[in-house]
Amino acid sequence: MGKRIVIIGAVALGPKVACRLRRLDPKAEITLIDRDNIISYGGCGIPYYVGGDINDIEDLYKTTAHAIRDQAFFADCKGVNVLTRVEAREIRRREKRVRICHLETGAEEFLDYDKLVLATGAQAVRPPFPGSGLPRVFTVSDLHDAETIKGLMATGKIGTAAVIGAGAIGLEITEALTDLWGIETTLIEMEDQVLPTLLGKCIARIAAKELERHGVNLLLETKVMEIAEIGENGRLTVTTSREGKKLEVDIVVLAAGVRPNTVLAREAGLALGTSGGISVDRRMRTSDPDIYAGGDCVEVRNLISGENTLMALGSLANRQGRIIATNISGGQSHFKGTVGTFCLKLFALGISKAGLTYRQAKETGFDPVYAVVSQADHAHFYPSSELLYIALLADRKSRKILGIEAAGKNGDAVKSRVDTIAVLLRHGVDVDEVCSLETGYAPPFASAMDVINNAGNALDNILSGSNRPIDAADFLYEFAHNGTRVLDVRGEKEAAPFKEKYGARWLNIPQDQLRRRVAEIPVDEAFFLLCDTGPRSYEAQVFLNSQEFANTRNIQGGFAMIKAIDPNFI
Amino acid sequence: MGKRIVIIGAVALGPKVACRLRRLDPKAEITLIDRDNIISYGGCGIPYYVGGDINDIEDLYKTTAHAIRDQAFFADCKGVNVLTRVEAREIRRREKRVRICHLETGAEEFLDYDKLVLATGAQAVRPPFPGSGLPRVFTVSDLHDAETIKGLMATGKIGTAAVIGAGAIGLEITEALTDLWGIETTLIEMEDQVLPTLLGKCIARIAAKELERHGVNLLLETKVMEIAEIGENGRLTVTTSREGKKLEVDIVVLAAGVRPNTVLAREAGLALGTSGGISVDRRMRTSDPDIYAGGDCVEVRNLISGENTLMALGSLANRQGRIIATNISGGQSHFKGTVGTFCLKLFALGISKAGLTYRQAKETGFDPVYAVVSQADHAHFYPSSELLYIALLADRKSRKILGIEAAGKNGDAVKSRVDTIAVLLRHGVDVDEVCSLETGYAPPFASAMDVINNAGNALDNILSGSNRPIDAADFLYEFAHNGTRVLDVRGEKEAAPFKEKYGARWLNIPQDQLRRRVAEIPVDEAFFLLCDTGPRSYEAQVFLNSQEFANTRNIQGGFAMIKAIDPNFI
Repeated sequence: MGKRIVIIGAVALGPKVACRLRRLDPKAEITLIDRDNIISYGGCGIPYYVGGDINDIEDLYKTTAHAIRDQAFFADCKGVNVLTRVEAREIRRREKRVRICHLETGAEEFLDYDKLVLATGAQAVRPPFPGSGLPRVFTVSDLHDAETIKGLMATGKIGTAAVIGAGAIGLEITEALTDLWGIETTLIEMEDQVLPTLLGKCIARIAAKELERHGVNLLLETKVMEIAEIGENGRLTVTTSREGKKLEVDIVVLAAGVRPNTVLAREAGLALGTSGGISVDRRMRTSDPDIYAGGDCVEVRNLISGENTLMALGSLANRQGRIIATNISGGQSHFKGTVGTFCLKLFALGISKAGLTYRQAKETGFDPVYAVVSQADHAHFYPSSELLYIALLADRKSRKILGIEAAGKNGDAVKSRVDTIAVLLRHGVDVDEVCSLETGYAPPFASAMDVINNAGNALDNILSGSNRPIDAADFLYEFAHNGTRVLDVRGEKEAAPFKEKYGARWLNIPQDQLRRRVAEIPVDEAFFLLCDTGPRSYEAQVFLNSQEFANTRNIQGGFAMIKAIDPNFI
Repeated sequence: MGKRIVIIGAVALGPKVACRLRRLDPKAEITLIDRDNIISYGGCGIPYYVGGDINDIEDLYKTTAHAIRDQAFFADCKGVNVLTRVEAREIRRREKRVRICHLETGAEEFLDYDKLVLATGAQAVRPPFPGSGLPRVFTVSDLHDAETIKGLMATGKIGTAAVIGAGAIGLEITEALTDLWGIETTLIEMEDQVLPTLLGKCIARIAAKELERHGVNLLLETKVMEIAEIGENGRLTVTTSREGKKLEVDIVVLAAGVRPNTVLAREAGLALGTSGGISVDRRMRTSDPDIYAGGDCVEVRNLISGENTLMALGSLANRQGRIIATNISGGQSHFKGTVGTFCLKLFALGISKAGLTYRQAKETGFDPVYAVVSQADHAHFYPSSELLYIALLADRKSRKILGIEAAGKNGDAVKSRVDTIAVLLRHGVDVDEVCSLETGYAPPFASAMDVINNAGNALDNILSGSNRPIDAADFLYEFAHNGTRVLDVRGEKEAAPFKEKYGARWLNIPQDQLRRRVAEIPVDEAFFLLCDTGPRSYEAQVFLNSQEFANTRNIQGGFAMIKAIDPNFI
């Protein structure tokens, strides 16, 4: 008789463990159980199903060869026994058995195991304000939620919605509601930016503008106080911390984060981590060596901060699933942790990041310094090129890269730059390596000095002191609130409307005239230096440095970056 | 007085050194000289100018802010003195001066230097066969060639062309002639595949099919013996090693490789390397510590093979240029070598690679093993997904990755996967790291278990012996020449035409029936296992392994890969 393996949870990690284990061990008796009747689905595809990019819900649980991944599929193709509508109620570790309940009949029985795998996932948080449990207040944790929301929208009776939480799921679902269905959507976020745990302020503001460009009503620094029903038609009012802001909407979607499902583990006495997830070692074993856990229910080590953290991502679940199966079958495979790589499509924008944000780096105790660059993703002379924005973060003294964020219209190109840094982060990569990073070059796909190299170059120049920068967000604040002047080194035509509006506050000396007209610039005054994308204003700054101008700051990413975060600036 | 820096060559590396040096050292006297009157241009853009993607030749020497990079631009914007139509004739190292000649007047003079930089580039090889110097036999080394070719085509008098050499430039120029201009083009290559120094046979055959799909007449294993003029209209005959093959064409383009321009360096007694390029250390210094060199005229270390090699790429030139400037101005910056990262657009196909090919790995003394996978670049259920093909190569014993090659319709997505491995290669990356590579995941941009992870997984399975593979190219050969049978585990519909054609040689048992129909398979016979993209045939193989079938081979990348290299196979 083969080893008995019981796996609790059959969405992402569970099926991966089961199938890989079967391939490694033809004799194992593998039982995969789930509370639900739909299993082995691409949960990350839910927003695209709701939004209409994916028409048929079955596409989310079909293989690439169009087979539906149901019980029969697992039995016939995979040699894995699946029990659906079955809930694990208790783990008896001494007896090595799990008490399960067949939800349709209420019947209970025991499953004996040699090795147990917990793939219990996470569930959407319902915040504690009044009304968060009302029928038209949805979460998007599973396919049933998705079907309900899509069904409601298909009736055409939903005209307005509120989404609570501007994290990844919140943004994806906001796009889904707005883009195809044309639902007037308000996105509410407590923090002062979207994606607060994922991005610094510049790239986050590019994302915010993309939301607003598509008609989303974005409320930052706003708390939801209460949701209430209006009469009996199901419509809701959302009361927020903003004075006089009471929204009337047809539905509310909660996207306030997820919480790992750990009841079973906790009641069995397994160790939980500081973040609330199940603790596992590098082999993905819990504190009981016969019980493995992985996916959204465990905590993982952030390799940059050294802290344990929750990271609910289907990609990590899949990688961990393979590792667990290898280890159960007698191999040696390690999951060392995460560097927090992430990407997102937001309407026409691709967003990507890895590592820490500026705030997180500060909190961790680093002395973070960042560069922001705007540059075409392909050779600037090649027709397909689009602007790409990168923020690159390093520790001042060690020059180690701590994080990277990027955005642009070509999401694959955005992800491409971030991924190269992401995979290096665990090896420890410094600024100098980024300057010479050997990524592929051909004009249809990159510049000879690519945007990723130039992000490194800019950061190198900042660290060496030759580039004294200000980011576009800070510039906009300073320019609006203080009297500082701009020295615009773009051409006269580009500068004209600004000169007209700001008069003496907006000095224009095109870069090719700067050397001979330097006497026109008051030496003791502070200036923000501006060009199109940053290199010319940096060049001007270096020249002015050599002429004893000590009080200039170079606007990182230039006017392109200003426009990306404030399209109306003039 | 500042340091006197003389830079010979003003295309890519030279201008980079000059501009960076000016920013680091405001007092340096920087002189940049070039034989040509056009300088600082994107030579890599030539094929796109010829092909029409770029209309205006000036786009290749304009900045992103549309300024033309000419002498005045370098003087006014960069503070760099440029002398054009000036040739360096002799380096007098003891006196630290360069003898130069003003080509328009023939006047000679000396330039004194404290540091000298050689950026003399490379020139196209003209092979020694008769006729290689005829007027209508072109190279594409500079913008003048490009203008001449484009001018000829614009007259509409060119209907046919031969391109000699199927390396990167050969492929790019073939596309340029064919795509916009509709010129009937024959591409001639001595080796048995296109891109012979860059790709292994599978990905190379995908490229070859893309050429043929666009009407290119591809002649492999073919030598050019002679080119001759027919009468006085300029038409040419190309005699090849193929019997009876005498081509008549209007023009010939030579793309038989480039050779570093080292005469000046050699005559000055500077050390040249085994590959023929100028020898430099990691600081990019030649054997004379006051003379630096970089770009196409130097040899660089291949970090995987350990051999010195030539690598004429604008991207390396730019990175090296920055390093040279840093070092000249008193900093410390190193160019450690190359891992041979490369990418190319070929009609609708993106191709990318890094590291060694199978042949090169063998020659270097490794014991290379490779996996080939076919998988969608985005989540398979997401509408924008396209098939992407990856070949991943490792050393059997050390499990170190030696190289990666990829192709697919979405070039940015192809490059993205290759770049992540490319940047890790110099750190030493093993198969296990690829399995868990933490690249960004969201359905619009990747799969939860991404194609790059699955390339690692497949290679891991091959190395562990559970996957016994055959690549699609070898399968096609074996199936055509030997009697081996196929066990097709796809659905009955997909298999039907093959069963009809091949009868008993083509056994079809859909994967979900394999467990119960295993008795139908003759145990002692050899079978090639086939599915759509590879995972199901691997799963079948693992099952058959457990049932004592020892003689199966899994066709890597499945039918998708077969179709990619032989669209007509049935």
